[in-house]
This record gives sequence, C-alpha cells and structure tokens, in this order.
Amino acid sequence: MQAPDGDYETRVRSSFDKQRFMTTIGATLSRVQPGEVAIDLEYRDDLVQQHGFLHAGVVAAIVDSACGYAALTLMRPGTAVLTVEYKVNLLAPAQGQAFRAHGRVVRSGRTITVCTGDVSVVETGSTIAVMQATMIAVDARDDRRD
Amino acid sequence: MQAPDGDYETRVRSSFDKQRFMTTIGATLSRVQPGEVAIDLEYRDDLVQQHGFLHAGVVAAIVDSACGYAALTLMRPGTAVLTVEYKVNLLAPAQGQAFRAHGRVVRSGRTITVCTGDVSVVETGSTIAVMQATMIAVDARDDRRD
Amino acid sequence: MQAPDGDYETRVRSSFDKQRFMTTIGATLSRVQPGEVAIDLEYRDDLVQQHGFLHAGVVAAIVDSACGYAALTLMRPGTAVLTVEYKVNLLAPAQGQAFRAHGRVVRSGRTITVCTGDVSVVETGSTIAVMQATMIAVDARDDRRD
Amino acid sequence: MQAPDGDYETRVRSSFDKQRFMTTIGATLSRVQPGEVAIDLEYRDDLVQQHGFLHAGVVAAIVDSACGYAALTLMRPGTAVLTVEYKVNLLAPAQGQAFRAHGRVVRSGRTITVCTGDVSVVETGSTIAVMQATMIAVDARDDRRD
Repeated sequence: MQAPDGDYETRVRSSFDKQRFMTTIGATLSRVQPGEVAIDLEYRDDLVQQHGFLHAGVVAAIVDSACGYAALTLMRPGTAVLTVEYKVNLLAPAQGQAFRAHGRVVRSGRTITVCTGDVSVVETGSTIAVMQATMIAVDARDDRRD
Repeated sequence: MQAPDGDYETRVRSSFDKQRFMTTIGATLSRVQPGEVAIDLEYRDDLVQQHGFLHAGVVAAIVDSACGYAALTLMRPGTAVLTVEYKVNLLAPAQGQAFRAHGRVVRSGRTITVCTGDVSVVETGSTIAVMQATMIAVDARDDRRD
Repeated sequence: MQAPDGDYETRVRSSFDKQRFMTTIGATLSRVQPGEVAIDLEYRDDLVQQHGFLHAGVVAAIVDSACGYAALTLMRPGTAVLTVEYKVNLLAPAQGQAFRAHGRVVRSGRTITVCTGDVSVVETGSTIAVMQATMIAVDARDDRRD
Repeated sequence: MQAPDGDYETRVRSSFDKQRFMTTIGATLSRVQPGEVAIDLEYRDDLVQQHGFLHAGVVAAIVDSACGYAALTLMRPGTAVLTVEYKVNLLAPAQGQAFRAHGRVVRSGRTITVCTGDVSVVETGSTIAVMQATMIAVDARDDRRD
C-alpha cells in the first residue's frame, strides 16, 4: 500500500506518544509501515483478569490502536483517525510474557478505512484475538466525531 | 430475569475483585441485579487518548465487563463466564468526570448468553458507546476456552 | 427524534420500492417514523435453511434494511444511505409465520449514523435476532462508497 | 487444517442442498476443503438493491454460509453448525457478473469455531465485503440453539 507522503511514521509516533493510556499499560509501537502497524506489550500482573491472564480489555486496546494507526499511515496529512467501531473475537486466554498486536488496512477510502487485526503470544506465535474494525478520517484541527 | 439462586451478587463481586486490571483503572461495581450489571469509573489523566478524553480501550473494557457479569448473574453456580466476542460502536468522545457502563442480558442460554451494553457520561447522561456481546458459560474449575 | 423535513417517508418508500431483492423475498415496509422503521416478512418455503426455518440471510437482510432506512429518515434531502457494516446475533431459530424487523437510530451524525435493530416472530413476540449497525450518508447523485 | 474424517464434503453438500434459500438465489458450492469453503453466485436482476448492484443481504448470506460450512468441515460427524453471530463490512458496491464468497476457519474449538470470510467480484478480483463470524457445534439430532 502507498502512504500519501514520507511522514506517515512521524505522524503515527507523535499521536501514539500522546496516548497516556498506552504508556500506562506499557505498550510500545514496534512497527509502522504503510497500511500496517504493530504494537508490543509485556505481561504485567496489574493488567490481568481473574485467572491471571492478560485482561481482554488490554488485548482489545492494543489491537484497536494498531488498526487505527495502520489506517492513519494511509490518510492525508492534516488528518486524524477515530475508531467508529470494532468487533473482536477472543480465541484463547492471553497467557504469555509478551504480546504483539498487528493492524492491517483492508480498504482505504477517503472517509472510511476498514482494518483487520490480531494479537499473538510472542513466545508461541499463537493467535489469541482477531479484530475487524472501521476507522474514520477527521480533520486534525477539529478532532471530533461529526 | 431470574437468577438461578440468591448468591449471584456474591459470585459476581468475588470474580470482579480478582480482576486486577479493573483495580488498576479504578473501576467499581455499582449495581448487580439478575441480568443487569453497572460498572463506574472516574476520569483519570493516565487513562486518556491523544486528546485528553478517556481511551476507547478503557471504555470498551468496562462495558465488556458489565456485559460479562450481567451474563454471570443468570448462570448456574459452578460456572464461570468468558467473552467469546463483542462489537462496540464509539459514538462520541469520552469527555467527562464520571462514566457508567451498563450490561444487560438479551438472551440467556445454557451455553451462550447475548448481551447489550452502553457507556454514558454521568454528568450529562450522554451515551458515548454501545456494545453487543456474546458470552459463554464454562466450568469454573476449568476456566478456559474449549 | 427529528426528521429534517416532512418528506422522510416518501424518500424511504421510494428507495425501498427500488430494492428488487426486497420484492423477491416479499418484504414490506410497515412503519416509517423519524429514526425508526419496521419491515414485515411472511414465511415462505423458498426462503428457508436446512431445517425449514427462515434463513439467517433473510433475517439479516430485513433488519439491515430497517436500520438503513431508520438512518435515512434523519438524513438531509439529497442524501442516500449505505451500510458500512453490521453485526448480528442470531438468538433462536426463525420459526413462525410472520416476522417483523425493527431498526432504530441510536446516534445520528452528519456522516455516520449508528442503529440497533431486532427481528421478532409476530405470533409469539419472541426476539430471534439483534443487530448493531453503522450507516453512512452519501450524496444521492453519486451513490457509492468513497 | 485436519478434518475429523473423510466425509466432510458429503456432510457439507448434503446440508447445503437442503438450504432452499441458497437455491432461490442461485448460489452454488464451488470448493469444500478442510477449514475452507467457497460459494459462487451469478448476478441476477431480482437480487439487487436500489442502484442495481447485488443486495448486501445476498452478499452477507453467501459469505455467512461459506463461513458456517468451513466450520462444519472440521466438526465431528453427528454435529450440525449454527451461526451464533457475524459482523460484515461492505467495502464497495457489489457490481459485477459473478461473485465468490470464501469462508476460512481461524480457530476451531470443541464448541465454538471462529471464521473469517470475504466476497470478491470474479471478473476483477476486487474484494467487496469482509466478515468475522462465530459458529457453534450442536448435536445434529437436536439442531437448535441451546
């Protein structure tokens, strides 16, 4: 896929760095390519559900972000991205030491971008969640839903 | 709706209290009724996205939990609940001081329970997210996906 | 909810009448109110799945249409509506003689409208499907996805 | 992926042939492999929406069926498959003469199977819809939702 200019990675990293919740949970941007973004997360025992596995809310948050930033790489400069909606299937308990979320653009339009994503356990390669998401481009100066 | 016994609230609170991620973000169980659960959350500046509003990952996490526990209130003793999948639409920026997530059972089956949920801003009553979720009952002693 | 003018029902009926697939399956528009539309369908044995119940594809099609037209009632004249995406849970077999799909607007924006819908069996009132859908307004003269 | 026995194609074709709605719209099973099924459909002018393109309800119906049968190929003999829920994004107008829906299993469990699917235009290879779906295995003698 083709990014609109060479600054897509700067735009993505600049936005990601302002997401304080990503810092709170220890997520990091590990890959930013046109139409594809990866986010890494280490296991921490303050991020777990009742059985000691990574909480589904954390799993969903990192793959939602990966999808959103994958969409942003293909959007015009001056544009921000918002999640319209997503759907996530949780396939297996998030059991492991390190997790990687991938987001990929399936279709990039002027307004709407559709992405798919997944989360896997780094040690085993096992996929623990899959996502299908809809993103919208908004003017970066007026970064609200219409 | 009819809970299977009088201990449904104890079962829900006991599970919720073990979800360390809920404690990490400051979420609290504010209502537990048969087929309906509410979870409250105060704004905190370590839970925000790039524009200073509550992160969508946090919004989704509390309504997913509310839906899961709403399902659990109607499940038999000895049963645990897992999220199979959910879909969430984010309607407006999560701008406010206090947020409330509601989960409600739409259909309760032996294996599968379907719920709807929403998140609103307490000050304004404005709905900022809606969810439709599928939960599954599993044996509490072997609390994994099959 | 407030329609933008008094012609919303005419716009909805005019579009519905051009959907030949709705005629093919025998669906009819039974209610058009601002932000809410109902579509009725009679059982026919050429619309069934392998156990003789109404096919899920037919169930989803009528509630998707009901949601789309509910969205259209609140859109400006000169606008057409397209389904961006929907998610449907099938709660029970579609067993009955007559079915009614309802679509309701949850949030109406300039570009994006979010709806919920359901399908019930008329004889019993039993809900057999629930939907959460995202619609987009497009210029009626250039009625494509961007 | 590994089918449980050599009769998976027979089981799929036998069930498909009983879906009268698939016959009504002219859909045919074009590929049945363990964990993957394709369904073909020719354009017909009684299956269209208001602009003369294939109706989204038809698009969704064939990819839902492809996902369900992909799941069934991996289920034990004596089992039937039901759609718990699906989510579909419509990417572009369904404009063309021939359409192919693919369903693929992402994760196959004892009870729950998760699939992804897509629909493309045969002439151009263009993808017009993507789906993420949850299927459930039920006893074939008592083929209802629990």
